[in-house]
Amino acid sequence: MFPPSPPATATAGVAVSRWHAAADSISTDDLVAVEEPLEIRVGGRSVAVVMRTPGHDRELAAGFLLSEGVIRRRDDLLDLLACRDQDSGQSGNVIDAVVAPHVSVDFDQLTRHVFSASSCGVCGKATIDAVFRAGVPQVPSETHFDPQVLAALPAALAAAQPGFGATGGVHASALVTPDGRLEIVREDVGRHNALDKVLGWALHHDSLPLDRHALLVSGRISFELVQKALVAGIPLIAGIGAPSSLAVDCARQANQTLIGFLRPDRMNVYTHAARVRATG
Amino acid sequence: MFPPSPPATATAGVAVSRWHAAADSISTDDLVAVEEPLEIRVGGRSVAVVMRTPGHDRELAAGFLLSEGVIRRRDDLLDLLACRDQDSGQSGNVIDAVVAPHVSVDFDQLTRHVFSASSCGVCGKATIDAVFRAGVPQVPSETHFDPQVLAALPAALAAAQPGFGATGGVHASALVTPDGRLEIVREDVGRHNALDKVLGWALHHDSLPLDRHALLVSGRISFELVQKALVAGIPLIAGIGAPSSLAVDCARQANQTLIGFLRPDRMNVYTHAARVRATG
Repeated sequence: MFPPSPPATATAGVAVSRWHAAADSISTDDLVAVEEPLEIRVGGRSVAVVMRTPGHDRELAAGFLLSEGVIRRRDDLLDLLACRDQDSGQSGNVIDAVVAPHVSVDFDQLTRHVFSASSCGVCGKATIDAVFRAGVPQVPSETHFDPQVLAALPAALAAAQPGFGATGGVHASALVTPDGRLEIVREDVGRHNALDKVLGWALHHDSLPLDRHALLVSGRISFELVQKALVAGIPLIAGIGAPSSLAVDCARQANQTLIGFLRPDRMNVYTHAARVRATG
Repeated sequence: MFPPSPPATATAGVAVSRWHAAADSISTDDLVAVEEPLEIRVGGRSVAVVMRTPGHDRELAAGFLLSEGVIRRRDDLLDLLACRDQDSGQSGNVIDAVVAPHVSVDFDQLTRHVFSASSCGVCGKATIDAVFRAGVPQVPSETHFDPQVLAALPAALAAAQPGFGATGGVHASALVTPDGRLEIVREDVGRHNALDKVLGWALHHDSLPLDRHALLVSGRISFELVQKALVAGIPLIAGIGAPSSLAVDCARQANQTLIGFLRPDRMNVYTHAARVRATG
């Protein structure tokens, strides 16, 4: 469908003055996570600019379009074109999606992101209803995960996060198999971008719905992350950080298992705990 | 100008099943950070829906409109109307801003957030140029901060963050005086919302520009946070987390001091280190 994005520069060197209580300040060099805009176009028309860490840009664009409901499966997307910077020959900060003729795109909805509200505004319930117009999708998957396997994931993610080790400044999303293997890990300064990159990877490999995978995220779990995971049919989402109230509400309604504060020896299971049980 | 928002519910109780390696799982109750949409209107017209933690909604709306360049000073904003839920009597999830007749609002730009790019897209430099159309503002303030005072801020912020202690799920922004006092602290599930609440507070108290304050943030420092701090004229921004490349670039251009990885005994000063020096 689309060629993989070229390797990119996820970190940038900057000068820094380090201050330490026990010493004078030292001027040295440091690495920070790169944050650059990516403009996503559909058929040449700009639909969004996201602030992201360069790398896996095609996957990011594909995952974004999947999350936003523009495309639903691999065949909806014919190509993803990255234009190249004339000076450096590197790919630039624009991805143009070529969608299949049968795909109709609601550009107004895509570019506005403002949903009309009733007299006294939107509540959490109205938000969930607005995002899932055809009703909250139900995750049918009965895949379950051993708590001992889940508890080992924070260490596995830390080992797989090269960007975080260097900069401390990036989020990660990973797909996890029931035996605890990290099948794919993506990083980004934005937590939703890291997840979009994972979903774009899955779309590219034609492995949607992801009904045999858990999603592992390095930080907190917002409503938006739960919503994106639901679009991909993921039965379990686990985060090192805390979930929000709306994330919990949405996962509960969708028959999705939501785990927060995942640690080597403990975790909080907020919804549908039946999927967390010893195997074998 | 506008009355303070009523106290709100920043946390919500949820059921949780706690798993611990050394014990069976326990079903109990937990608190999570509330995430709800807030629709921001100007003159009755919807301009944005932000996912935020309820509380200080008027400040959030005022800070948002300031950050977006709709208003520039206190007199630009005549009122902020919160409609009330008919059942509960509580304020709903809509704030309607009444701006002064001399304020002209570019609704298209506000609701689109997509800037037109040249052939090969936007780069970091183009992003900075697009955000600051009249040139990157320069922070003239010569206010400086003692590194020992800055090093004490993480502990002060932790003590002042009730939401984080209960849920682990919220970001904080605080204004700090040169003697290390936290003048105002605001929390939110969204880091930019927490800062908008602080800026709205400052606007309400007619204390812009904030040329005698540092901004302290609980997490990572993105370009967007630097941009909002610049709008308010803040000379120094310090974060417990890492900055992004674009945040460093922007602060450097704007004569703003940017500090990351702020700890009790050390910190990294990425730009304009001259403002970090011992006082007295």
